[in-house]
Amino acid sequence: MISRRTILAGLGATALTATARNAAFAQDTKQLVIDAHGHFTTEPKSFLDWRLAQIAGLKDPSQKPSPASLKITDDQLREAVQPQLKFQRDRGTDVAIFSPRASGMGHHIGNAETSADWSRLCNELIYRITQLMPENFIGVGQLPQSPGVDPKNCIEELERCVKQYGFVGVNLNPDPSGGFWKDPPLTDRYWYPVYEKLSELDVPAMIHVSASANANFHATGAHYIAADTAAFMQFIQGDLFKDFPKLRVIIPHGGGAVPFHWGRYRGLAQDMKKPPLEEHLLKNVFFDTCVYHQAGIDMMFRVIPVENIIFASEMVGAVRGIDPQSGHHFDDTKKYIDKLNLSAEDRRKVLEGNARRVYGLDRTAFMKKRG
Amino acid sequence: MISRRTILAGLGATALTATARNAAFAQDTKQLVIDAHGHFTTEPKSFLDWRLAQIAGLKDPSQKPSPASLKITDDQLREAVQPQLKFQRDRGTDVAIFSPRASGMGHHIGNAETSADWSRLCNELIYRITQLMPENFIGVGQLPQSPGVDPKNCIEELERCVKQYGFVGVNLNPDPSGGFWKDPPLTDRYWYPVYEKLSELDVPAMIHVSASANANFHATGAHYIAADTAAFMQFIQGDLFKDFPKLRVIIPHGGGAVPFHWGRYRGLAQDMKKPPLEEHLLKNVFFDTCVYHQAGIDMMFRVIPVENIIFASEMVGAVRGIDPQSGHHFDDTKKYIDKLNLSAEDRRKVLEGNARRVYGLDRTAFMKKRG
Repeated sequence: MISRRTILAGLGATALTATARNAAFAQDTKQLVIDAHGHFTTEPKSFLDWRLAQIAGLKDPSQKPSPASLKITDDQLREAVQPQLKFQRDRGTDVAIFSPRASGMGHHIGNAETSADWSRLCNELIYRITQLMPENFIGVGQLPQSPGVDPKNCIEELERCVKQYGFVGVNLNPDPSGGFWKDPPLTDRYWYPVYEKLSELDVPAMIHVSASANANFHATGAHYIAADTAAFMQFIQGDLFKDFPKLRVIIPHGGGAVPFHWGRYRGLAQDMKKPPLEEHLLKNVFFDTCVYHQAGIDMMFRVIPVENIIFASEMVGAVRGIDPQSGHHFDDTKKYIDKLNLSAEDRRKVLEGNARRVYGLDRTAFMKKRG
Repeated sequence: MISRRTILAGLGATALTATARNAAFAQDTKQLVIDAHGHFTTEPKSFLDWRLAQIAGLKDPSQKPSPASLKITDDQLREAVQPQLKFQRDRGTDVAIFSPRASGMGHHIGNAETSADWSRLCNELIYRITQLMPENFIGVGQLPQSPGVDPKNCIEELERCVKQYGFVGVNLNPDPSGGFWKDPPLTDRYWYPVYEKLSELDVPAMIHVSASANANFHATGAHYIAADTAAFMQFIQGDLFKDFPKLRVIIPHGGGAVPFHWGRYRGLAQDMKKPPLEEHLLKNVFFDTCVYHQAGIDMMFRVIPVENIIFASEMVGAVRGIDPQSGHHFDDTKKYIDKLNLSAEDRRKVLEGNARRVYGLDRTAFMKKRG
């Protein structure tokens, strides 16, 4: 018996465009589309005001607000995420894995208490959004990191995020100093308490820096991309996944420079007598698709195994405009995926399966309901 | 009359492979192949020993060696560059634009005097090599930078490099701190004395960091690529080339992450109300081809105008092994260029013309002799 896939493959790209194929498959398979990288970047003003007051309170303790003083209603939260919901509808994505604004984490600001208070509030808000709109948002948490503060300090909030809030992961900041890189590399034992807890809870971490406090690094244009690249190289140099074979990490923004320099990384690993990257890292390291043009996405899919690529758009995020070359939003990354000539099986991995596996989504209320 | 190019174009890619076309054109046009990014990474041991003694002298001044104590013979220099000459022959490149070992600049070590002594010695050695083998090497200099030290301090050595040694450019380190990024961004007036002198001398700078003193950044796998990316984003944020319309800068290693995230950079520039990148930066900013796999090079040529791409391999450099997937050295980047389906005109730009224009090579003895 000849499968539908074989017949379609036989028709070839010229007989049936990639888009038409994908449309046919989508009808056929009721494809779930999970956007694995969304941040709450449209917070109510009162929330941002609270943070400003908290920062002001570092210099003038009389201005320090209490966490209890922050009042945000459910209606305000529903209103705040309307841009995300509109994009979900317009772009045909079903659900976002949603975390607090990455640049807002601001781990370099204040001290451990500052980060603890702020992270709790940020995570509570994400939790409430996931409860109000469980069809649209699955939560990922922010850790209360601070430069030079033992990462053990994050364990309590990490546990709350997963056990109490049902979050499916956290963002781990490899540089809490905000662009000065003062803490040890991610492969250092310094970070092991976090990896131990992530492994125990069986949730992944997205490696994601926050705002840059260093004028050399624009946040979304330099610090993010540089950090993604540095993190991957740290993993090459180390042997972290020998110690944590079940740990999964997602490197956002397409892995920074990594796919573009895939030959360099394969070569460096080889020069260092490390195993091939597939064996050394790719059972544990995944990349999202926050790459904002077709040529970048095409190249990424040429070199990175499809099992390691997780669909994401980072919306509403780094780049908000419309690309005059395509007429679409730069960050409408699903359009680039749609133009790839992926098999139905590979397409399902990228849009749904890989996220389900890496984030362990099948235990969530969302997936149990979808079946 | 139908040109040779039109006839060949008419034959199409299927009738005549890209490689065969290139070979035909190469015979036809006596294509010069200029490798614009080579470092002297095979220095005589006595040279590296001098540097170690200089570093030891920072703690124990009795060990400080005098520059005059370094004795390297012409034969030792000829012997030292044999690996480069062999690669030039094997790979079909004619000449290398050659500078001191980038990771060896070590601007974070010692003080301004340390950097001044070391840079002078490094540049002298490059000068001697260009005199001994003028057919094979064109010089580029190292600047005596130090973290926090006014870049004016570099002017004397920059003038010596260009006026006395006939060098065609210099390497400018955007982070003399070695991975802690303590100096201002490249668009800051802090750096203007260097740009004024570069403009006056009409030579470009390659933006190139040195070794990383920060365990978070592997030198060639993270610090270099992160710095390339950060530098480009700094240029987007600033308006440097309004002040220095004739200044040319080369961002090495394919521009770091820039081509892969070309959509992000176009989008960020647009969000910031900057002109399109072609207008804002691409009259002044160029990228080399030190990207060590075919898919990366292919993508780069899809998005970056061919006028902005300068052939280079960085040999003998970052990655020294052979790619098991291709059977060739990772850094044999000419093989990737050969596989592009470039027109003869575009191929000439990438391999020769862009370097001649950006580095002003036509004034060199090398080009005058070639005619």
